[in-house]
Amino acid sequence: MQRISVLSPATVANLVCGFDILGLALEEPSDLMILTKTESPGLVIKNLDHYGLPTDPEKNVAGVSLLAMMAAMDNPPGFELQIEKRIKPGSGAGSSAASAAGAVAAANLLMGNPFTPMELVLFAMNGEKLASGVKHADNIAPCLMGGITLIRSIHPLDIVKITPPELHVTLVHPQIEVKTSDARQILKKQILLKDAIRQWGNIAGLVAGLTLGDHDLIGRSLEDVIIEPVRSILIPEFDLVKKRSKEAGALGGGISGSGPSIFMLSKDKAIAESVGEAMKEIYTKAGIDHSVYVTTINHHGVKMIPS
Amino acid sequence: MQRISVLSPATVANLVCGFDILGLALEEPSDLMILTKTESPGLVIKNLDHYGLPTDPEKNVAGVSLLAMMAAMDNPPGFELQIEKRIKPGSGAGSSAASAAGAVAAANLLMGNPFTPMELVLFAMNGEKLASGVKHADNIAPCLMGGITLIRSIHPLDIVKITPPELHVTLVHPQIEVKTSDARQILKKQILLKDAIRQWGNIAGLVAGLTLGDHDLIGRSLEDVIIEPVRSILIPEFDLVKKRSKEAGALGGGISGSGPSIFMLSKDKAIAESVGEAMKEIYTKAGIDHSVYVTTINHHGVKMIPS
Repeated sequence: MQRISVLSPATVANLVCGFDILGLALEEPSDLMILTKTESPGLVIKNLDHYGLPTDPEKNVAGVSLLAMMAAMDNPPGFELQIEKRIKPGSGAGSSAASAAGAVAAANLLMGNPFTPMELVLFAMNGEKLASGVKHADNIAPCLMGGITLIRSIHPLDIVKITPPELHVTLVHPQIEVKTSDARQILKKQILLKDAIRQWGNIAGLVAGLTLGDHDLIGRSLEDVIIEPVRSILIPEFDLVKKRSKEAGALGGGISGSGPSIFMLSKDKAIAESVGEAMKEIYTKAGIDHSVYVTTINHHGVKMIPS
Repeated sequence: MQRISVLSPATVANLVCGFDILGLALEEPSDLMILTKTESPGLVIKNLDHYGLPTDPEKNVAGVSLLAMMAAMDNPPGFELQIEKRIKPGSGAGSSAASAAGAVAAANLLMGNPFTPMELVLFAMNGEKLASGVKHADNIAPCLMGGITLIRSIHPLDIVKITPPELHVTLVHPQIEVKTSDARQILKKQILLKDAIRQWGNIAGLVAGLTLGDHDLIGRSLEDVIIEPVRSILIPEFDLVKKRSKEAGALGGGISGSGPSIFMLSKDKAIAESVGEAMKEIYTKAGIDHSVYVTTINHHGVKMIPS
């Protein structure tokens, strides 16, 4: 095989009470990436979109991830990587992770799977480091593996895949800018033990609800008393979106990644669509450009498609 | 029915990373409680042991719990409650919870189950309030319901029963005194967000491991970076017990409740017995009186036995 095309999905990290540890993959949107082996060594990146992202591999999140992988190969071939980004950069829906994970997953498939999924996560974390300054894996892992992933530990890397019951996801991207680095800076370094206890009760409830397929328990556990109260002030209409989404029947939700996107989980598609309508109404009234996706959880992660 | 006898089990609260939220019930030891309806109204308590606990119902943890239940009945009968404590008070193995939960569970059975399990938890929490000053439910819940219980939230009370895979428990009670109130006082009110994140990764891993029956994941997740480093200094030989237990094959463990008992979880009985031998050796060498129990998880909670 000389060429491969893959779809690399958007992801929601910081799943409400699961800050830095829980993420999920979405069926839509996905970036399209086409990777070709070339005669000449090295890596060439070409953009098929109009976001104007850097094509210098050292400055591109897909580039640095794939270079890390090539450095681990004995005789790496040359590659040309074409990227059509469909996940807006800066939306909080794992755009950088999709580029980083998609590139290494495509190369691994093209080379006959020389690397393990854990190795792919480690290569792709170089992309996150370039994008946000932090080598986090909570978008990378669900992007590569699909479903919901738990990062139990970063050192050593310990990732657990959780297969959730049927869940529909509504994601709204209000088109304002929230920098990941700003969103991280406003967090307090110290928190109250009593808040931490409430948070780990919810985390435990959420994981139990997901593994046992208990939608009500999932809903009751979707509460974040530590990060959301601080970060949500950066997102206009956050409280209203949450209130209206729950009134429309959503189980709950919160900030996607570090924002500004907001996601909501629902038990069925009809509810997820009503939630989407409520979101549209709120941001239309507020005069803020926005995109809404009504989708489900992606269970396979990065996927090969016919070239 | 005029009389009922029940066994009310010891419990392990503060399950390593699950401080204040996760507890489990033990097959052994259990308190014996015999409850009889009487002609005269009110509550009379008789001790069948030599611990000299108060028999004034207002000053007895079983007493205040049962009085709370009687106050919720339309026409409560009189009761005589005989208690043979086999779980040593102050051991950290849920001795007060066994008294409180056993009393209300026995009365509920004797009266034909007028109250729900959640109501029983609320009545029995009065006993914990008397014993430690805090209305906590993390020993009460597993004592009443068996298995492993998650207290997702105290206000409102939300308890989730988790059915774990086969697990054997070794419990050692070094006979020194650690007061629950002291153990609580030395905890810091503020913790680092980064430590909290590590803790909730472990909580999530532990719950996933328990519900999915993944012993290795359970073992990797049995890590407490917040409470144990502070409280373990009150327990002589703690680090050595943990080290030797793991060398003997234990999955992991920690302080039972607020100590001084230490518990370890193992995959099979033979390992749990080796762990018990290691514990005995350590405390014998240190010249500290101790009791060791090699037991399993109790899946039924308070249980009626022939009178």
